[in-house]
Amino acid sequence: MTNKTAMPGIFITLEGPDGSGKTSQIPLLADYLSHQGCEVVTTREPGGTAISDQVKDVLKSMKNKSMHPRTEILLFCSARAQLVEELIRPSLALGKIVLSDRYADSTLAYQGYGHGYDLALLRQLLDFATGGLWPDLTLYLDLDAEEGLNRRRSGGDEWDRLDDYALAFHQRVRKGYLEMVSAAPQRWRLIDACQIPRDVQSSLRQTVAEFLKIPNE
Amino acid sequence: MTNKTAMPGIFITLEGPDGSGKTSQIPLLADYLSHQGCEVVTTREPGGTAISDQVKDVLKSMKNKSMHPRTEILLFCSARAQLVEELIRPSLALGKIVLSDRYADSTLAYQGYGHGYDLALLRQLLDFATGGLWPDLTLYLDLDAEEGLNRRRSGGDEWDRLDDYALAFHQRVRKGYLEMVSAAPQRWRLIDACQIPRDVQSSLRQTVAEFLKIPNE
Repeated sequence: MTNKTAMPGIFITLEGPDGSGKTSQIPLLADYLSHQGCEVVTTREPGGTAISDQVKDVLKSMKNKSMHPRTEILLFCSARAQLVEELIRPSLALGKIVLSDRYADSTLAYQGYGHGYDLALLRQLLDFATGGLWPDLTLYLDLDAEEGLNRRRSGGDEWDRLDDYALAFHQRVRKGYLEMVSAAPQRWRLIDACQIPRDVQSSLRQTVAEFLKIPNE
Repeated sequence: MTNKTAMPGIFITLEGPDGSGKTSQIPLLADYLSHQGCEVVTTREPGGTAISDQVKDVLKSMKNKSMHPRTEILLFCSARAQLVEELIRPSLALGKIVLSDRYADSTLAYQGYGHGYDLALLRQLLDFATGGLWPDLTLYLDLDAEEGLNRRRSGGDEWDRLDDYALAFHQRVRKGYLEMVSAAPQRWRLIDACQIPRDVQSSLRQTVAEFLKIPNE
């Protein structure tokens, strides 16, 4: 069991477009891990602490349509810095499994591949924001960009400022995720999010069980 | 008249501790410049746009005492990124003089010299946040750290989370400002903020008039 964080816990992130089912899959995955005897903490970006939630409100507000992409990047990074120090690191130090719905790779996907910001520069910024904390395992829920937007439109969640970007943007984001999966297969795993939810959950459990070397019946 | 921004306007910032009188001096300096026929825009950090003001509220709130220094740095940078793109650059492009109460050098002083974050790393971060926009002229209102805090305590302004740092912190900040003044005398000017306010204003006007090569009677 490798752990780049040099802490006893395991840091697992889920990535993928809104509409790919991350948010409903995470509690089920957490339940499974708890039943296997793991202590699990789940969180969701942006947000996850009182301060990060205040930043999320600024990011998501439809009245902030004039937000510059650099402002957006720095706000995501500030919310993440607080989440890392207040929740993720302390949990990992206690040997827990942290499951996060999105993390630093979202910035690379959306602001890097999506908006075209320099990836090396973004990685430096993310290293600063996170104090160099990267996940041990990242599960990418892959979904066609158009299908993801359709699911968001027809789903019950509120449509926010970030959903409003054009389809071409979301297509670049997907391409970025696929590149990251190919470039670092030791950390990334691709999960087909077109499956029915029960099968997505089975894939997630099997992948995590293999990684953690725990039984998966 | 040099202008590192390659835009027709002139970007002037005021730096120095809270309590040094920046906020009351700026409108008087703006009046003077307007009477000389300049178009002047004044602004104040953090804040200055609707989005930046929302970020300022997060930064200043006394309930956010658990804020990590890296979160704080990134929030200041995000508010600044928006201010640059929404107000400062457009004003400079129109040939205006922009007078800002604090700017990127405050991050170097407070988070770099004050909190001990790496200055080179902060400069990179600030270059990203501002798109490389640095002032043409920076007026540093110098005041003993203890005197600055005393003025804040006895003044009418609300005491906020950032005032709460210890005296030793504010002394490191002052030392940082003095180092920056020495290192780049072509941009920085030191103004003695222990003078009575009328004399501080005279010093400011004289310094700016010399820089802009306009008459100062």
